[in-house]
Amino acid sequence: MSGNTFGKSFTVTTFGESHGPALGAIVDGCPPGLALSESDLQRDLDRRKPGTSRHTSQRQEPDRVSILSGVFEGCSTGTPIGLLIENADQRSKDYAKIKASFRPGHADYTYQQKYGVRDYRGGGRSSARETAMRVAAGGIARKYLAERLGVRIRGYLAQLGPIRMELRDWEAVDSNPFFCPDPARLPELERYLDELRRKGDSVGARVTVVAENAPVGLGEPVFDRLDAEIGRALMGINAVKGVEIGAGFAAVEQLGSSHRDEITRAGFLSNNAGGILGGISTGQDIVASIALKPTSSIRVPGRSVNTHGQPEEVVTTGRHDPCVGIRATPIAEAMLALVLMDHYLRHRAQCADVRTATPVIPSGHDR
Amino acid sequence: MSGNTFGKSFTVTTFGESHGPALGAIVDGCPPGLALSESDLQRDLDRRKPGTSRHTSQRQEPDRVSILSGVFEGCSTGTPIGLLIENADQRSKDYAKIKASFRPGHADYTYQQKYGVRDYRGGGRSSARETAMRVAAGGIARKYLAERLGVRIRGYLAQLGPIRMELRDWEAVDSNPFFCPDPARLPELERYLDELRRKGDSVGARVTVVAENAPVGLGEPVFDRLDAEIGRALMGINAVKGVEIGAGFAAVEQLGSSHRDEITRAGFLSNNAGGILGGISTGQDIVASIALKPTSSIRVPGRSVNTHGQPEEVVTTGRHDPCVGIRATPIAEAMLALVLMDHYLRHRAQCADVRTATPVIPSGHDR
Amino acid sequence: MSGNTFGKSFTVTTFGESHGPALGAIVDGCPPGLALSESDLQRDLDRRKPGTSRHTSQRQEPDRVSILSGVFEGCSTGTPIGLLIENADQRSKDYAKIKASFRPGHADYTYQQKYGVRDYRGGGRSSARETAMRVAAGGIARKYLAERLGVRIRGYLAQLGPIRMELRDWEAVDSNPFFCPDPARLPELERYLDELRRKGDSVGARVTVVAENAPVGLGEPVFDRLDAEIGRALMGINAVKGVEIGAGFAAVEQLGSSHRDEITRAGFLSNNAGGILGGISTGQDIVASIALKPTSSIRVPGRSVNTHGQPEEVVTTGRHDPCVGIRATPIAEAMLALVLMDHYLRHRAQCADVRTATPVIPSGHDR
Amino acid sequence: MSGNTFGKSFTVTTFGESHGPALGAIVDGCPPGLALSESDLQRDLDRRKPGTSRHTSQRQEPDRVSILSGVFEGCSTGTPIGLLIENADQRSKDYAKIKASFRPGHADYTYQQKYGVRDYRGGGRSSARETAMRVAAGGIARKYLAERLGVRIRGYLAQLGPIRMELRDWEAVDSNPFFCPDPARLPELERYLDELRRKGDSVGARVTVVAENAPVGLGEPVFDRLDAEIGRALMGINAVKGVEIGAGFAAVEQLGSSHRDEITRAGFLSNNAGGILGGISTGQDIVASIALKPTSSIRVPGRSVNTHGQPEEVVTTGRHDPCVGIRATPIAEAMLALVLMDHYLRHRAQCADVRTATPVIPSGHDR
Repeated sequence: MSGNTFGKSFTVTTFGESHGPALGAIVDGCPPGLALSESDLQRDLDRRKPGTSRHTSQRQEPDRVSILSGVFEGCSTGTPIGLLIENADQRSKDYAKIKASFRPGHADYTYQQKYGVRDYRGGGRSSARETAMRVAAGGIARKYLAERLGVRIRGYLAQLGPIRMELRDWEAVDSNPFFCPDPARLPELERYLDELRRKGDSVGARVTVVAENAPVGLGEPVFDRLDAEIGRALMGINAVKGVEIGAGFAAVEQLGSSHRDEITRAGFLSNNAGGILGGISTGQDIVASIALKPTSSIRVPGRSVNTHGQPEEVVTTGRHDPCVGIRATPIAEAMLALVLMDHYLRHRAQCADVRTATPVIPSGHDR
Repeated sequence: MSGNTFGKSFTVTTFGESHGPALGAIVDGCPPGLALSESDLQRDLDRRKPGTSRHTSQRQEPDRVSILSGVFEGCSTGTPIGLLIENADQRSKDYAKIKASFRPGHADYTYQQKYGVRDYRGGGRSSARETAMRVAAGGIARKYLAERLGVRIRGYLAQLGPIRMELRDWEAVDSNPFFCPDPARLPELERYLDELRRKGDSVGARVTVVAENAPVGLGEPVFDRLDAEIGRALMGINAVKGVEIGAGFAAVEQLGSSHRDEITRAGFLSNNAGGILGGISTGQDIVASIALKPTSSIRVPGRSVNTHGQPEEVVTTGRHDPCVGIRATPIAEAMLALVLMDHYLRHRAQCADVRTATPVIPSGHDR
Repeated sequence: MSGNTFGKSFTVTTFGESHGPALGAIVDGCPPGLALSESDLQRDLDRRKPGTSRHTSQRQEPDRVSILSGVFEGCSTGTPIGLLIENADQRSKDYAKIKASFRPGHADYTYQQKYGVRDYRGGGRSSARETAMRVAAGGIARKYLAERLGVRIRGYLAQLGPIRMELRDWEAVDSNPFFCPDPARLPELERYLDELRRKGDSVGARVTVVAENAPVGLGEPVFDRLDAEIGRALMGINAVKGVEIGAGFAAVEQLGSSHRDEITRAGFLSNNAGGILGGISTGQDIVASIALKPTSSIRVPGRSVNTHGQPEEVVTTGRHDPCVGIRATPIAEAMLALVLMDHYLRHRAQCADVRTATPVIPSGHDR
Repeated sequence: MSGNTFGKSFTVTTFGESHGPALGAIVDGCPPGLALSESDLQRDLDRRKPGTSRHTSQRQEPDRVSILSGVFEGCSTGTPIGLLIENADQRSKDYAKIKASFRPGHADYTYQQKYGVRDYRGGGRSSARETAMRVAAGGIARKYLAERLGVRIRGYLAQLGPIRMELRDWEAVDSNPFFCPDPARLPELERYLDELRRKGDSVGARVTVVAENAPVGLGEPVFDRLDAEIGRALMGINAVKGVEIGAGFAAVEQLGSSHRDEITRAGFLSNNAGGILGGISTGQDIVASIALKPTSSIRVPGRSVNTHGQPEEVVTTGRHDPCVGIRATPIAEAMLALVLMDHYLRHRAQCADVRTATPVIPSGHDR
């Protein structure tokens, strides 16, 4: 049943297969009066797109987005915004040989069983190519959040296989092809990935995203809590196997006396909560991390069965990312932006009347 | 905006505060013809309820659920099922003193800021008491899944603070107050918790849930992927800060050649995927784990500010769990049941016509 | 699939059968800070309840509503509001004889075919008794709309069988058991209904509802237009077979030059639109009318078949309304209130930023 | 808030303005395995499109639809279906002069007030041009309903201003430009419309749609009753001011003894219910009628105010339909198809297990 719509008040509905003629989205519920053009969306599309370094898929896609409606004279009108990206570099013949294969770690088997039919070209709808539309749609949310509320959403590669990186320099993140936040680690990363490519293998990664300056009060308990919605949004990105908010799994070994973020008049003294308490944003930085599995498209042969149930060996030789996590940062940022935008609109639907007399706790401490 | 409904086809809407007169739920979309009575729901409510050992809150709640509609002559009719649990043991006066406090680690501040008003008695709606209705509603899903599809959903405490437990004996899980799957570790657990209680502190935990025999094909990509929905359902449980599917964060350091679950005619050779590929169930065990933070209600004094912005010291002396993770197992099971039930109905809405010719991969290997 | 929730931002989910233990509702999304008590809801419940004159069903139901959550110290908190009405006068034995009957004009056959089972007592869920919860929930919407926005929602019986009534006196409507807006017609109405009851027959009715002072801008085109949502809300009331907005079916024979409501600086010169243009409220009175079929529960024998497919004669002797339209006025008002409330919240979610410079057209002319 | 999605299980989301570059839709939830091509959708688009006779707008739009995803090798795959129609004949300069006008009877004023900005070219999103996408999407539903369930959906012009038409010949409906079901009335219709055009005026219409052979059991009470959903779907078509199911407003004057459709072993003896009882389909023909207002774009001058609140006279000289009802038949059919398709999927989500032992009442009698 219809699972291609994200959000309730600010909704994004997408379509498109990896090797079909085009990808598209409809963004519904965007507030009117937002200055908007294709170039606003292009920046993040360019950050996500393949083929920009030797460490990602060599597929060449310009990923040029067109706005087909909902914007008039440079300004959103409140009507649905239609977005379209044409697929350019479709080497579908690469995929004819996998028509009858269930590649291990891929969605071939599950799509076939669920629908009885599948577009096998490049994984069809299950390809991460689909995330281009999430990034385009997320760009609209980011623009609104930044311009109207001053929210800044950024992310970085926190770990690649065994290599853990500290956030040392936000500025550095976008100046290298890995979204690595510590320039000193770049040579190590490159060596590791070159070696991995040589072996025809792949590796997992961890990406962290942060939203600064998000308003207090976002999240709709008990089921549509902000953390639950972030959990859904991030776990729904291709290859993600885990999501953490704030301290995440480290909280398992914490004591209550150290986990709870104490408060003084100067603000919260720590941010184990990741900016969310009781499913509602606190005004601190919202911090989430995801675990991405290694891509399953590798040259190392793997055992599988084909669509007739016969055993076969699978080797993938197409154009693939040795670490899907590398390109995941803008996607995770976009999904976080969509959650915050949707919940900002939902919050003001119910609570626009609220004039609270209680003082706001400063949020500056936790950066 | 209205965030108290879970699911799309099998929906659960809940209400109720910790110290209000009652908790309730409406379960809408239950297939007709299911044999159902209050006792079917009571078993899991009893597993969740407080006061059953010295290691959980001493609040005494019988948690007796009444079915008020939707069941006729012992059988579901297809109309909405109304559920009600009256609150019995409301020591609201315990809470008068926190009326003007923002307890660190609690939702006091966020509820106050969001709504401008809050029911401070026992945390009001933000209390985990609300999860009783999730367990009751989940019981309906569990019964259907078990009777009609043979799905079995179980969980256990995998870690408490520094103590990690292996799954040694499913039978043991329900015969101790911790949902501990390894009876040999019980003395250690008890000692640790007794010491913790003495110190007035609390600790985090990790809980794992497993659904065996779930059908292939559940999940609605790209946004309502099964893993995304499990992510939302489990992250939305009080105190949860992290969710993993299958290998989870361990996937960050795995190579593609070892992460991808190879397939032979005998079935999958491993289950790093946790039973989900491309957001759709594979027929293997669905495996998810959650991290629960230590409860913030502890006797160790903590710094905070009150509703007037003045600094104050907070000490919590009410009846509380030193580890909220202990009682989380039936809640996590219930949420997993709700996700699977909803997605089973959603799947058959769209795909009831599908008669696939491809062979089903045996799922037996991964247990 | 789960069809018992109304609204998107201000949602009402109901449960309950005619002869079950209770009816209930959960109202989710109510803005916090609204003064609210049971007595606010009781007034309309009393207007709807049966047994208040010889012209309606003699079933005696006090219809006392309890608020179980979401209200603290007399004020809504923003959390879901649980409502409960216990059924008092359940003469279920009256219905044992219809267990195997498909009463013509009733939902017996369709419920049986759809669900394979049905609660036959008093029509179960298909009974108009269910509308008590709509009226209770609608009362919350009415209170908010009136207090915060000055919206007044009223209705009247516009036609009963062949007797057409003009709106002569709003004050009179609530002072007679028919919601008749012209006191001069009361003797005629009583004679007609007494005669009808003597014959054991029933008759249809037309009810008109009006919302004054609704804000400009409500409605979410293209599918969730305000007129579409009113169409859904009113057509979904038991026994309704037609809905009109403004001129309604009279528009079929109108010319464009007379239908379109011309505008001067003093306001609109007419209201054929019924206060809605392009699916969005204009600020004029919102006017809608409904056609209610005659109740099918009559003493005049009717041909039918039973659940075994055998022919039988059906005579209904329970307690029934000779004209269901008589009690429909508060139900239609409640549904209109729910639509307006939901759309007010939806509108401000998207358009709270809008500061329009265009002048508002005065709406005073159309009363 | 996001009102451009129709349906819950089979959802249609649309975008596009009258004079923007394109119109589009995403159809999500279509069952896999349906043979589908653009030509399947083109037939109804051609029936709806303007410029096919002198009695409709002279705008020339080929209305060629492209399928951009969700169909592989001629067959639906279960993934979302992207649809696109490029706008060809955009004479936007015709509209520059109405930039500052609030045309009476149009949505200019309400869009401006709601959003603070509007695309004034040809009415922007409020133009009936948007219905092309409804017809395209509805074509997918019609194909499934026809092929898998044998449902046939047809409609006709039942009244145009004072001219009432009987259904004499279904075959004739598509062989004249008015969807007139009685060929003998064609000269009269033509004369009336020619005269109307000469006067520069317009007139209302009534259209009736019928679904034959719809399954018993569709509809999800109490709020998502089938009649409520049809009410919403049809009232949401541009210019519609009234909707009737079955006897409709005629039920107001009917007695219960004549309205209720009696049943014999040969089937129902009448169809005042319009094929729906208790909000659920009976298996009889589903019959609904709509009232369409006269188009407000006429040459007869009308009084209004402009965006500065100054009085002005409005005369519309663009390309318009003298009776929008003429082209409404395929739109109403499409909306009815969408409702039935969505409810068929919703019904089988909940009730696929039901194996009813009760006999089905033959539905043949009511044609």
